[in-house]
Amino acid sequence: MFITFEGPDGSGKSTVIKKVYEKLSSDGYDIVLTREPGGTPIAEKIRDIILDNSNQAIDARTEALLYAASRRQHLVEKIWPALKEGKIVLCDRFLDSSLAYQGGGRNLGIENVLNINLFATENTYPDLTLFFDVSPEIGLSRVSHDKKRVADRLDNENENFHEKVYNAFKDIVKTYKERTVIIDASKPLEEVIEAAYKVIKTKLDGLR
Amino acid sequence: MFITFEGPDGSGKSTVIKKVYEKLSSDGYDIVLTREPGGTPIAEKIRDIILDNSNQAIDARTEALLYAASRRQHLVEKIWPALKEGKIVLCDRFLDSSLAYQGGGRNLGIENVLNINLFATENTYPDLTLFFDVSPEIGLSRVSHDKKRVADRLDNENENFHEKVYNAFKDIVKTYKERTVIIDASKPLEEVIEAAYKVIKTKLDGLR
Repeated sequence: MFITFEGPDGSGKSTVIKKVYEKLSSDGYDIVLTREPGGTPIAEKIRDIILDNSNQAIDARTEALLYAASRRQHLVEKIWPALKEGKIVLCDRFLDSSLAYQGGGRNLGIENVLNINLFATENTYPDLTLFFDVSPEIGLSRVSHDKKRVADRLDNENENFHEKVYNAFKDIVKTYKERTVIIDASKPLEEVIEAAYKVIKTKLDGLR
Repeated sequence: MFITFEGPDGSGKSTVIKKVYEKLSSDGYDIVLTREPGGTPIAEKIRDIILDNSNQAIDARTEALLYAASRRQHLVEKIWPALKEGKIVLCDRFLDSSLAYQGGGRNLGIENVLNINLFATENTYPDLTLFFDVSPEIGLSRVSHDKKRVADRLDNENENFHEKVYNAFKDIVKTYKERTVIIDASKPLEEVIEAAYKVIKTKLDGLR
């Protein structure tokens, strides 16, 4: 079972995924927690190029291709082997983030970005996607109040960029409604964790 | 005018391109000499990941996407600006190498590799391609006798790989025969340089 956590910056999904991982682990499930971009040594090296603030000259299509490359390596080295062993994989960002950030935010077009990603993933889609829905206003104000967080190259984009990302996410959720569940991420963290946990638990129970 | 030099390892094209660059420069042409993968700081960082011998786990599709990413950055930062200024760009390897090495050598299929590259290049093709034709046997024996050359990850592939690359190059030359001129690279270096220089000079004279 391959489960992805998606949403705009400040949706809280990275905190939620850790908590859900802990809860499901203590329930006895065999789970792998991972994240994109990165997750393996080669993928992390690619991630470093993408997020390095000194690489301001990086072009939008270069960025999209690098994300696709790191996704491929992540799948081959980590996600597919875990799934083959029957594990549950929880992944912080995957395909939908590329479609939203590069397809929508960078104006490359969702279809174009999908095409290079289908080359990368050989048509692998998640079995379940949780979309953590929070408006760009709330999301960005959370990010700017988080003092532990060091802003990376993508955090530093302007509001218009994040608005386009959010709208693209909404379109993507509609396109892939069979595999996607929307979680209201404007609510208090504890409630969001509980909602996410319940969605996954229901899906897992349905498989028994 | 965008001119690419293509061919298998050991075809001598990297030596030839430097000599041709010198000859054309002394003729008074305004020329940029560059190479793939690389050519700009970000592209060079991507090149380091591709060619690093410690990255043995790198998947064929990851490799193809990284080449496409570095090609994009190279175009945006170096090739397009030079062409816009009316310069002649001589590039050591470009699109056709990806089609031959990843499409043919790695069995990804020329069409699949072409598709991600057309995303990267927005359908940019060279105006002229010189294919340095040398059999894998001769090419590889030249590479193995070159003591200055430190073998990278791709040099260390087996003979079957280089055979597939060569056959793919032959197919690609047929597909793109309008822009491609075949140079017999089994001949002595001086003759190869002279032949390459003549082909380019004729093309440039035709533009006057």
